[in-house]
Order: sequence, then C-alpha cells, then structure tokens
Amino acid sequence: MKKSVKTTIKVRYQETDQMGVVYHANYLVWFEIGRTAFIEELGFKYHEMEQQGAVSPVVDANISFHHPIRYGEDAVVETWINTYDGLRVEYGYQIIDLNGEVAVSGNTKHVVVKKDNFRPVSIRRVFPEWHEAYLKAMGEK
Amino acid sequence: MKKSVKTTIKVRYQETDQMGVVYHANYLVWFEIGRTAFIEELGFKYHEMEQQGAVSPVVDANISFHHPIRYGEDAVVETWINTYDGLRVEYGYQIIDLNGEVAVSGNTKHVVVKKDNFRPVSIRRVFPEWHEAYLKAMGEK
Amino acid sequence: MKKSVKTTIKVRYQETDQMGVVYHANYLVWFEIGRTAFIEELGFKYHEMEQQGAVSPVVDANISFHHPIRYGEDAVVETWINTYDGLRVEYGYQIIDLNGEVAVSGNTKHVVVKKDNFRPVSIRRVFPEWHEAYLKAMGEK
Amino acid sequence: MKKSVKTTIKVRYQETDQMGVVYHANYLVWFEIGRTAFIEELGFKYHEMEQQGAVSPVVDANISFHHPIRYGEDAVVETWINTYDGLRVEYGYQIIDLNGEVAVSGNTKHVVVKKDNFRPVSIRRVFPEWHEAYLKAMGEK
Repeated sequence: MKKSVKTTIKVRYQETDQMGVVYHANYLVWFEIGRTAFIEELGFKYHEMEQQGAVSPVVDANISFHHPIRYGEDAVVETWINTYDGLRVEYGYQIIDLNGEVAVSGNTKHVVVKKDNFRPVSIRRVFPEWHEAYLKAMGEK
Repeated sequence: MKKSVKTTIKVRYQETDQMGVVYHANYLVWFEIGRTAFIEELGFKYHEMEQQGAVSPVVDANISFHHPIRYGEDAVVETWINTYDGLRVEYGYQIIDLNGEVAVSGNTKHVVVKKDNFRPVSIRRVFPEWHEAYLKAMGEK
Repeated sequence: MKKSVKTTIKVRYQETDQMGVVYHANYLVWFEIGRTAFIEELGFKYHEMEQQGAVSPVVDANISFHHPIRYGEDAVVETWINTYDGLRVEYGYQIIDLNGEVAVSGNTKHVVVKKDNFRPVSIRRVFPEWHEAYLKAMGEK
Repeated sequence: MKKSVKTTIKVRYQETDQMGVVYHANYLVWFEIGRTAFIEELGFKYHEMEQQGAVSPVVDANISFHHPIRYGEDAVVETWINTYDGLRVEYGYQIIDLNGEVAVSGNTKHVVVKKDNFRPVSIRRVFPEWHEAYLKAMGEK
C-alpha cells in the first residue's frame, strides 16, 4: 500500500496577503514541509544528504488552488510519492482545510544533483537506502 | 500579434536558499511581477480592480525549472497571455538568465472573484475594458 | 510572576539563504509565531480581534543576532510581555538553539488600531479582557 | 559630506498581509535592497565578497514603523552609513512614501565573517578597498 504522511500547518500571519487569504506561492512552501515530513518518516533528512554534497531541487511543479485558506484556520498537508524511477521522484500533495475539504492539490518533481555543479546523480546508485525506502513507500516492496 | 512584456528582476539575497540559488517558490512571485507589469502595460492596475471589490486569485499554476538562477545575476521575466475566454485568463511566462537562456518557464490561470465572498465574476461583463485589452493583447483585435 | 510561553520551530528550507543559515528577517516571523502562541495561551486569537475591525501592527522592533540557526536544527522561541500601559504592549523574545543557547533576542512594540483607518484604539477600553489578561501575564494581578 | 543612496521599490502583492499593508518583516528585506544598492554605488558587490569566502551577516537591527505602505504605492529606500570602525558597519535607512513622508526608519549593524566558520574578519585588513570606500562614504576622506 502506498504510504502517505499528514502534517498539520498553522497559518502564519506573514503568509496572508491583502486578499485576506494565504498567498498562493506559500503552498509550495507547505508542500516542502509535507515532503520533509514524509522523508523523515522514511528515516532520512535533507540536511544529511547535503552533508554528502548533494541537494534535491524541484524540476517541475503543478498546483491547483480549489479554495483559499485563511488565517486562524489550521490546515493539513498530505504527502505521498506519485512516481519514482531511480532518478526522479514525483511527490503528490493535498492540502486539506478545517472542513476536511481539499483546498489545494499538486505535485513536484525532484532530482538529486551535486551541490557544487548541479549535475544529476542517480538516487538508486548514490543513495541506495533512499532508493529502497522510496520503493517501499510506493508499496512496491 | 501577441503582446509580451519583459521585466528585469534583480535577485534579492532573501530569495536565495542554502543550495546557493533562488528558492523555487520565489519564481511564482516573479511571475506575479511579470503579470503586474503586463497588466500595467495594458493600462490597468490590480489595486484599482480591488477598489471595485474584486480580486484575481490564481486557480492553477505550472512551473518547469530548467536551471537555477543565482544571486548577483539579473534575470528577465517575459509575460504574455496564453488563453482567455471572458472568464479565465492564462498567463505564460519565461524567466531568462544572463546568457539569454530560459531558466524557468510556466503559466498561471486566474479568475476574478468578489473580494467578500470569492464568487466568480465575468471579466467580459464586469470589467469590459480589461476584456477588450486582453483580446487586443492576444492579437485577436 | 511573569508568564512566558515557549514554542518549538522547525526551520523551513525556504527560510535559509545562501549563507547556509536562517535569513535574518525570518526571525521577525518567528517572533510573530511566539507572540501568537503567547496570545493563545492567554485565551485570545488575533483573527477574532480582526473580526471586531481592529488589527495590531508592530510600531517598533529591535533584534540582536548572536549566532545563526541552521536548517536541520529545531529552535524554541520564548515570548513574554516586557511592558504594557493600556495602549502599547512590548513583547520580549529569545530564540534558543539546540544547545540551549540564545541565538537571537529582541522585542516588538504593538498598538491596536482600527482596520479601516489605522487610528489607535485603547486596549484597556475597547478590549478589556485582553487588558486584564496582559496585566495578569505581567504578574501585576 | 555623507553619501546616501536612494532606491525605488515597487510593492509586491506577496509582500502585503491581510491588514492590507506591507508585512513588517519585509522592510528588513527592503533595507537589504537599499544596502546592496549603496554597496554597488561604492563599486562593490556582496557576491564578490562571498567568492572570497566571506559573508556579511546582520548582528543587530532596529526598526520604527511610522505608518504603513500599501500595494500600488511606490516607495523609496534611502541608505547611508551611520558608523564604521574597521570591523563593524552600521547602515541607516529610511523608507519614504508617495507623499515624501518617512514611513519606516531603522538601522542594521553588520560584521564580516568567514563563510565556513562564521569567525569575524577585519574589514580594514582583509577588505582594504571596502574600508577606504566606507571612510569616503562617511565623508571622512
């Protein structure tokens, strides 16, 4: 079965804009929070990857904004893996509001690159434990 | 002919992250800057729309990150209209780096809604001058 | 005795800059998080104040940055009231790192104003429950 | 005579909050923009300092918020050097609104440190050209 991780997010005043709702770009930050929590559930941490000289930039992001979230309302970001091929991983997300409705959904695609030259590295080869954990999280192991 | 508007952006230190590049969510802010400049070229301003009780939230965003932009490098965001149907407008963007290469590309879809209840309004009917300007900017008038 | 409230903060990747540490302006956001938690401990919420047509802008802020906080390190923001006179409230903060050392300290002064014209209102007169709670939190009741 | 540099800033929608004004922490970012422009007027760039392995963190910041700035209003940040002693430099700033009034004022104190260990370096000794330019900008040369 596919693993998914839920993380509660408390809206920061700073995240609102003058429409009176969360500014749309902040949902990408919330996706980052969800992704980090997901990774940590698998037993990993991004800063440990960085200590090995690698970073994991986003190469593609898609977001649908169904309805706004407001200050004073807690939200939940749910994160899972959509696809993974040893090189690229695509995370899926939905942000669920107070009433249990999906306010925002989306996905982000990531590679792993060397920090000093941004050349791609194979997750399967260079980070075999992440590779195994990804497969397991997708229910393929 | 399709109108497009180019705006120069100077990377803020605040926009970088510890990868040493611009944090990905900031490109959505740069798209906002490009869109605002485009709108102003058409002779409009978002805050004038807001004074009439309407706001224009993003309903969908897609971004492809081709290569990173770094602090100390100026960038240009180019903005145009992809599609418009009287109700929804989709802007297209590309962010061009120092070397003239496309670093980031994407699009955002917008509606116009009443500020107090987020109910959609027809751009064609309620903002006829924007409607005319959109058609003209797409080269359809 | 003076009340103080501690809130744990997990560094967001977005909050780092290319120095490899948390970008300094974000500590003002963390102060906001501490202040919100403090207020909620007193039984109040900012968005309830806003529903009554009032907001509480910062009029003065002072921050000392003793040493940086890094991604992957949790921090704690501790918040208390320094001074309060019925009209202005000054919060004090310290941000404590993994090793229990104060990384950042500071204070912010706030008034309450009407949302529509930014004219000051007396907290004592218009928000008497906040007034009482502030006095109690300072150990003066 | 003391040198000062003025830079125009166009409010980003992202910088507003639900009070309908610029969120206070963003003024620290505007100070950064003013400081960068000031430095560039002296003929330097922060990223060149970084290429030499040094960064210039803020050690102290003080801000007074006199009245808010709103979306749709351009602002000007004026930057100068308050004090400099070969090791620490304090910049002064004021943010001037549409009507020529000071909306925000403040200062930030900076040191220069080695990027890898955050140990302070003497600006006078390690960056003698910056040292000379600072003195000149203060009207002391």
